[in-house]
Amino acid sequence: MKLLAPSNRLRRTWWSDAVEAAGVSAYTVYNKTLLPVVFDSISEDCRHLKTAVQIWDVACERQIRIEGPDADALMQRLTPRDLERVKPGKCAYVPICDVNGGMLNDPVALQPRPGVWWISLADSDLALWVEGVAMGGGYDVSVSEPDVQILGLQGPLATELAAEVFGEETREIPFFGFLWLPFGDGEVLVARSGYSKQGGFEIYVPDAGLAMPLWDRLWAAGEQHDIRAGCPNAIERIEGGMLSYGNDMNRADTPFEAGLGRYVQRYDCIGGAALRAHTQVRQIVAIELSEAPPVCDREWALMDGDVQAGRVRSAAWSDEFQCGVAVGMVGMDWGPGDRLTCVTQDSEITAEIRERFWR
Amino acid sequence: MKLLAPSNRLRRTWWSDAVEAAGVSAYTVYNKTLLPVVFDSISEDCRHLKTAVQIWDVACERQIRIEGPDADALMQRLTPRDLERVKPGKCAYVPICDVNGGMLNDPVALQPRPGVWWISLADSDLALWVEGVAMGGGYDVSVSEPDVQILGLQGPLATELAAEVFGEETREIPFFGFLWLPFGDGEVLVARSGYSKQGGFEIYVPDAGLAMPLWDRLWAAGEQHDIRAGCPNAIERIEGGMLSYGNDMNRADTPFEAGLGRYVQRYDCIGGAALRAHTQVRQIVAIELSEAPPVCDREWALMDGDVQAGRVRSAAWSDEFQCGVAVGMVGMDWGPGDRLTCVTQDSEITAEIRERFWR
Repeated sequence: MKLLAPSNRLRRTWWSDAVEAAGVSAYTVYNKTLLPVVFDSISEDCRHLKTAVQIWDVACERQIRIEGPDADALMQRLTPRDLERVKPGKCAYVPICDVNGGMLNDPVALQPRPGVWWISLADSDLALWVEGVAMGGGYDVSVSEPDVQILGLQGPLATELAAEVFGEETREIPFFGFLWLPFGDGEVLVARSGYSKQGGFEIYVPDAGLAMPLWDRLWAAGEQHDIRAGCPNAIERIEGGMLSYGNDMNRADTPFEAGLGRYVQRYDCIGGAALRAHTQVRQIVAIELSEAPPVCDREWALMDGDVQAGRVRSAAWSDEFQCGVAVGMVGMDWGPGDRLTCVTQDSEITAEIRERFWR
Repeated sequence: MKLLAPSNRLRRTWWSDAVEAAGVSAYTVYNKTLLPVVFDSISEDCRHLKTAVQIWDVACERQIRIEGPDADALMQRLTPRDLERVKPGKCAYVPICDVNGGMLNDPVALQPRPGVWWISLADSDLALWVEGVAMGGGYDVSVSEPDVQILGLQGPLATELAAEVFGEETREIPFFGFLWLPFGDGEVLVARSGYSKQGGFEIYVPDAGLAMPLWDRLWAAGEQHDIRAGCPNAIERIEGGMLSYGNDMNRADTPFEAGLGRYVQRYDCIGGAALRAHTQVRQIVAIELSEAPPVCDREWALMDGDVQAGRVRSAAWSDEFQCGVAVGMVGMDWGPGDRLTCVTQDSEITAEIRERFWR
């Protein structure tokens, strides 16, 4: 690995100092913001995530705020997800598509209060798109990027810890539900969500003054639960089939191809006509590799003899399942049980398409 | 410095393998693409840049292509620069603003052939904005991101080397002029431009098959000129007053505040009304620091006693000028000769506003 040269252009977060004190060893850059990727090692970080509780600086999930008389109409114009079915107090995973149905982002949206939307972004400057659409369509809204930063709490002991810090009512928050809860002299929005399959919360912090007191409080209360600083883990998220925008899918892929067809519920949105007429030619699949892959820093071809069946876009070695775990995109002619050859930058590895992800 | 964790989401370029073989030690991430930042050290890289010639992988300057009947009209809608004054065969620096006149990007645009525009991006997903505006305004255009990657050739010996590789006519290319020139079995666009004050070229390579042959040819011909792999250099670019979008200015700043008022030539563009009504409240200035600053990984306050006069956004130590060199943004009440205190993460440094940059 090479070093990451710091600069003012790459945002530090309210917790970067704490993350560095806790021993982060590698970052990535996500929405021009530092995102921790490794503390001890990704395999040790993964083992710990599955057994205890971790505190994650995921402030790189930048927020877009849309408010005004046409906020609901604009939101529905942006996504094929039917937002009328999203109940108050619930988060919604909302693929955002271009006119061709290509994925521009796959954020989580919620209404922190009636008439206001927050969109919690994957890695693209979606605000530019939202503002361009709003301006062009004459929507009466204001679009901004509020400085709301997210602290994640993930792992099997996250519910216990959240109950101690925020109160027993956090136990009753359903998956993808959220509550505003008092903290310090303010409030934070606590959502049961997050980028692991171990359970936990994302805490939307709307005020820099609450940021380090929250970190410190969680850390102190978490000591008895073996709390550590952590981060989205490449192994665990692939085992769980959690997709990464920019890695596993991008603008060249539709929600159907990305395995997100169940979120295409209406066609009166941007890209709707293309999605209605869409014929799916490839699919996201779980891929098992026979040996430990090298670092997946580029796409790898999946070959069926001389024919390219598709490509692998994310991969890691799983200690738990004792195999390489990968996310692939393959043509519709291939399916579970098919054995292919994965051509990495270093070697060729036997790959098998699985029925489903590991978790 | 921490490590940069590689992933498929962070694009490698056609030259990343060559850059690594040449000994890159640190990257940044720019438009989700790897951009080399340090080879030996920034001071040694700087010294060499000023004396010889360097080959730069600046493929992170991603391209947007706009073509179609309304391409010219859309381009003019996007920028306050008067594009009618831009002659064929010339590049144009075109600030792009939002409705408030805030800078969304400061790309270089050119017409590789009549009726087609390429926009060579600074660090933001401007294609999302351009497409949103085009869709909303009903412009008859197609907008795409072609895989055209740029190889830079910078340094006092760049002209000599370019003449040897591309022919004597490259000597006649004026500043910000360009020519299509044959290379291998194709053509490359050679522009006299680039992100240093040492002179040189940016070579737009429209075909992956030409990429490494071009690198190898330049490298071989450059040996007698002490060619090295290099990159935009933080010291040299600050000495020369070359601004960095995301570091020195961003959406919160107008072109006037960023010192780019001379490019505001028309007001019939997005943001035009705001720019016409604009009252400038701050200004970009050169700042001399009395000692070597720490790494500028965040904004530093510039204090005039107890009053904040502004902030420093980029800084480095200059061996040539034997002082700290910095880019600041200060209120209109301050000017050349004013002595301020720069508050970094480590210490307080004496700072003086200069009349102009060093080069």
